[in-house]
Amino acid sequence: MLSTMQDVPLLISRILTHGSTVHGASQVITWTGEPEPQRRSYAEIGARSAQLAHALRDALGVTGDQRVATLMWNNAEHVEAYFAVPSMGAVLHTLNLRLPGEQLAWIINHAADHVIIVNGSLIPMIAPLLPRLKTVEHIVVAGPGDRAPLAGATARVHEYEDLIADRPTHYDWPELDERQAAAMCYTSGTTGDPKGVVYSHRSVYLHSMQVQMTQSMGLTDKDTTLVVVPQFHVNAWGLPHATFLTGVNMLMPDRFLQPAPLAEMIERERPTHAAAVPTIWQGLLGELLARPRDVSTLTHVTIGGAACPPGLMRAFDELGMPVVHAWGMTETSPLGTVSRPPASSLGTDEEFGYRLTQGRFSAGVEARLTGPDGERLPWDGESAGELEVRGPWIAGAYYNGPDAEPLRPADKFSADGWLKTGDVGVISPDGFLTLTDRAKDVIKSGGEWISSVELENALMSHPDVVEAAVVAVPDDKWGERPLATVVLREGAAADFETLRAFLAEEAHIARWQLPERWTIVAAVPKTSVGKFDKKLLRRSYADGDLDVTRL
Amino acid sequence: MLSTMQDVPLLISRILTHGSTVHGASQVITWTGEPEPQRRSYAEIGARSAQLAHALRDALGVTGDQRVATLMWNNAEHVEAYFAVPSMGAVLHTLNLRLPGEQLAWIINHAADHVIIVNGSLIPMIAPLLPRLKTVEHIVVAGPGDRAPLAGATARVHEYEDLIADRPTHYDWPELDERQAAAMCYTSGTTGDPKGVVYSHRSVYLHSMQVQMTQSMGLTDKDTTLVVVPQFHVNAWGLPHATFLTGVNMLMPDRFLQPAPLAEMIERERPTHAAAVPTIWQGLLGELLARPRDVSTLTHVTIGGAACPPGLMRAFDELGMPVVHAWGMTETSPLGTVSRPPASSLGTDEEFGYRLTQGRFSAGVEARLTGPDGERLPWDGESAGELEVRGPWIAGAYYNGPDAEPLRPADKFSADGWLKTGDVGVISPDGFLTLTDRAKDVIKSGGEWISSVELENALMSHPDVVEAAVVAVPDDKWGERPLATVVLREGAAADFETLRAFLAEEAHIARWQLPERWTIVAAVPKTSVGKFDKKLLRRSYADGDLDVTRL
Repeated sequence: MLSTMQDVPLLISRILTHGSTVHGASQVITWTGEPEPQRRSYAEIGARSAQLAHALRDALGVTGDQRVATLMWNNAEHVEAYFAVPSMGAVLHTLNLRLPGEQLAWIINHAADHVIIVNGSLIPMIAPLLPRLKTVEHIVVAGPGDRAPLAGATARVHEYEDLIADRPTHYDWPELDERQAAAMCYTSGTTGDPKGVVYSHRSVYLHSMQVQMTQSMGLTDKDTTLVVVPQFHVNAWGLPHATFLTGVNMLMPDRFLQPAPLAEMIERERPTHAAAVPTIWQGLLGELLARPRDVSTLTHVTIGGAACPPGLMRAFDELGMPVVHAWGMTETSPLGTVSRPPASSLGTDEEFGYRLTQGRFSAGVEARLTGPDGERLPWDGESAGELEVRGPWIAGAYYNGPDAEPLRPADKFSADGWLKTGDVGVISPDGFLTLTDRAKDVIKSGGEWISSVELENALMSHPDVVEAAVVAVPDDKWGERPLATVVLREGAAADFETLRAFLAEEAHIARWQLPERWTIVAAVPKTSVGKFDKKLLRRSYADGDLDVTRL
Repeated sequence: MLSTMQDVPLLISRILTHGSTVHGASQVITWTGEPEPQRRSYAEIGARSAQLAHALRDALGVTGDQRVATLMWNNAEHVEAYFAVPSMGAVLHTLNLRLPGEQLAWIINHAADHVIIVNGSLIPMIAPLLPRLKTVEHIVVAGPGDRAPLAGATARVHEYEDLIADRPTHYDWPELDERQAAAMCYTSGTTGDPKGVVYSHRSVYLHSMQVQMTQSMGLTDKDTTLVVVPQFHVNAWGLPHATFLTGVNMLMPDRFLQPAPLAEMIERERPTHAAAVPTIWQGLLGELLARPRDVSTLTHVTIGGAACPPGLMRAFDELGMPVVHAWGMTETSPLGTVSRPPASSLGTDEEFGYRLTQGRFSAGVEARLTGPDGERLPWDGESAGELEVRGPWIAGAYYNGPDAEPLRPADKFSADGWLKTGDVGVISPDGFLTLTDRAKDVIKSGGEWISSVELENALMSHPDVVEAAVVAVPDDKWGERPLATVVLREGAAADFETLRAFLAEEAHIARWQLPERWTIVAAVPKTSVGKFDKKLLRRSYADGDLDVTRL
């Protein structure tokens, strides 16, 4: 029996229309480095998005589901692209400006981008790649920056403002299938080629609603959100779409992501909310401690992308800017969990503990834990397994080029279609997730898992230890056992026996988890993004390049 | 180009699973009239919903999309039916216990209900109807009340607790099409047969997300909501589903809807939020003024179903229980607007004015105004037209029996599928709706609309007027003109000239809207639900039964 409800697809154009009418007075404020930021109302964003869509269709010939890429900072023009491109039926492809040029070129070719909208300040990044790009026919330049490096381009070069000027401020947005592609974002794993996640209108719409539900970010037209998390990274955690649902003002830092301008824009524009990764906040904290500012309006800070260190969380509490932890990934749109402590914990010692977890699963995100042997594990706060998730804004495959079937690698998707996150953790009976390791780094010892991260953190809490990396190495009896790689402080006296005893007695690590293999190194090798290079450590061990002591 | 996102349908079973696991400790508290209310955790509701579904399938033979009706107050068992019935694939049909028996029997037969779950206290209502019910095979009785009147029933009679006892507490909920029927509710218009609205899993899920977005009710697991609005009326404004998304505790008054027990349950169970129609609040206000209680926790009151009088809103403000206005109807699931004043109005004189409007449109509810000649009217806060709405939780038709095509009467649905609400009003540029009249009562004078309600309110603000009803009567020159029907205070001196001058000078009614036809009556005739019977007034005028003075 079918319902009698209207069959109205969930489309990004509807988010735009709602925001630019009902919340037409709300603003996108873009930092310019000038005395006054650029202020653009949602109504203006709506009109300019329509103009951009007309320009893309009529001047640049964008049709069907062609890809329009952006290589841009967070700013009003990027928001316009966010709405115009999917609303007209094309696909927005956000390019990560932190990627090496070679990877960027590969991704642009793989997605077969037809147009790239680029900020003037990023021309030096795109210009050298142009000869290698096979499908790009148009470059649209927005904002300040020297255009000269584009002089010899075979693609046609346009000025954003010239392109949209005098075009109609209304566009008759098409009624699309809500499952159609709206936006795409590549995730670069540590192995293999980058993988494209293709968001649908439906997934973006539902994720946006979730962002403005109370257990998530929950912002209103009384809020201004400082969107530090880049628009080129998982849709800036959904904020540009979600803000249009409830009229939240957006403060966009453009290229001014250094601690001093961030502190200045908080003091001057008085945001109530901000979203960023921990490293940004670490820098901002230093700036605020060195040069105090009035940041009293900022009472809600969402941190994600990596675990927030407890010390940072406490420091922000003391500044009156409480941190709310969140977890997600490119494949989860990204919000999967948000750490709002349950009612029962408020005012108790447990409250801070809850805040340190990755958070509670949102309605719409189903979760399960899978153990070393593929078994389902209980939500008991103790059983560690790989986190698998399912839901309408969770990826079920990767993009494989315009004409190919989607990719569903078995290490990324279960046979029944759940996303394998590659994160290992525990879930409490009340649905709070605590991540303990990456699945590829966890040590599988006798059918149980040992967290490399937990051992590293415990070791690094010893005063003589500067850095510590723990990796799995083969073991005849247990399958795998942990190898502890330690960088000692200059002149430190601690030996391996002392450190091992410290782990057992001070850090309360279970006996069976204590490493018996130990080595001292001058520095832990790092990957290009600054993480411990555990693959290299495992190889060095296998090659016999490390001087290992066995206790 | 299709997205790579998972294709996970939006199902009520997913709301249940989320609430009963992640928010398993949250509670449904049902008032019993005993010293202690009944307390049931969401985890228990989840287990018992599974047991109920097993019972319905295995013991009562419910299959496919058969209808399971409820004739129940707001209580935990009704919440269990809310989840069990749609989750198993059947359709929940909530019966309005305020309807006359004849209408109830017609509705039950029209929906072809297979089972009725009835509260023991409501047996006297259902028992006399049984001989007329053609499809009901099972009656399930829950809660206290004399069973004797059911003795001679041909339908089999079951005890709710016996029926679900010892059944499995897990049910493998089927993966349904999200557009499938989940629940139905009949709306009884003033003319013709009652009309069934059939909600889908999709519409309920999306509406529930909206309820917990910040601009709407926006409740969390720190809240307890007193659900006075009946579960038999538009799904209790979506609260039983929405609460399970974010772990809100529900306080259910069962049959104790009188002011004194409501005041007592507020004082004892300390809800933070409540939802009800104005008449309930009017009664509660009297009770609280007569016998003050500690109601300090209740800081958020949603009022809908009818306009909240400004005096009531101010009185609740003074009690520290601010009212938030909302508008909706059975056909809109129901939430369409919620009156949260915009940021710019806070602390200004405009704030209270915004609160008196029906509210701002939620994302997901598109609105337009249609004028007397079918023209589209602007959102200028002045142009009055009939409100039409579109969206994924708005009805596009009425149910027409199990085997018939849905009904789409032209006075209810536009040719392009929008719902004609039958309400006349204006929309401000920032998306706030102010309703001024019902479309059937508005006076169409020379291509413009005159609000009957506005004239009535203005007249009733005159000290000599006890009641006033204004209806449209035919006019050769203008098409229609207003007729003012007035009940004067005993011994009042005002004549029609005085009242007309009062409208113009004190109430600032535009000259062209002033009535020239006036009559005095002893009492305004009322319908069975206490509203002015304007149809009867128009007929009396046409029949020459009124003594009309023409100014």
